[in-house]
Amino acid sequence: MEQRLSLVTLGVADLARSRRFYERMGWAASGTSVDGVVCFFQAGGMALALYGRAAQAADAGIEPAEGGGFEGIALAQNVRDKEAVDAILGEAASAGGRILRPGGPAEWGGYVGYFADPDGHLWEIAWNPHFAILADGSLKLPR
Amino acid sequence: MEQRLSLVTLGVADLARSRRFYERMGWAASGTSVDGVVCFFQAGGMALALYGRAAQAADAGIEPAEGGGFEGIALAQNVRDKEAVDAILGEAASAGGRILRPGGPAEWGGYVGYFADPDGHLWEIAWNPHFAILADGSLKLPR
Repeated sequence: MEQRLSLVTLGVADLARSRRFYERMGWAASGTSVDGVVCFFQAGGMALALYGRAAQAADAGIEPAEGGGFEGIALAQNVRDKEAVDAILGEAASAGGRILRPGGPAEWGGYVGYFADPDGHLWEIAWNPHFAILADGSLKLPR
Repeated sequence: MEQRLSLVTLGVADLARSRRFYERMGWAASGTSVDGVVCFFQAGGMALALYGRAAQAADAGIEPAEGGGFEGIALAQNVRDKEAVDAILGEAASAGGRILRPGGPAEWGGYVGYFADPDGHLWEIAWNPHFAILADGSLKLPR
């Protein structure tokens, strides 16, 4: 297996609502999206997809259990300064997201906050002075 | 908000077990990993992280509810041919993963299978003739 991700697919209750949320956050859907079925966003060298939660469970061959609560997965976007953390959390609140942790100092020396999208999927927005962000937005771990 | 992901963090019950699983799948942990705390894997222009599930919930400021069952998120790796789907599912089974859907044709014209990692996190392995894979492994959505 190669050491890379191609897609992260979020199961959602209402595809149109979720697409609107990400569009309000400034994301532009790919033309390969299919209304009412699936929505794709190019995200650097990978893609974020929105897909019906029940259809996703069926696709994976598992039961779409109740869910809710903590999913045990968080997406993150690292940003270039502390101010961007607060700005993005503000955008998320305006777009219909829920602020779980307001921006503030992290014990590891950065500045971090969390929001949940309309389905409760977690996003961490972080300024991390230890991890480089390249010109194209890529994250580069230290050696 | 920029249209990109920096990290995907998987909450895990046993960090050493999860790290072993991904290492057996051929992934190499970054030197910035901290034993017993967090493990990072560079993955193209982003990183995959393993972190204790309870610590992750605390970090996000939410309750670490029971969990289990369907998380509503799937990671995916797209590969260059059908044979790679079966090969990776075989590796995952050998490494201690659980095959949820054996490799087989997908209704959208590709070939796909799913496995769950030791914590039940979903991985879809897909050959998708509609999405390009660049030389560096990046995924490129069609226009």
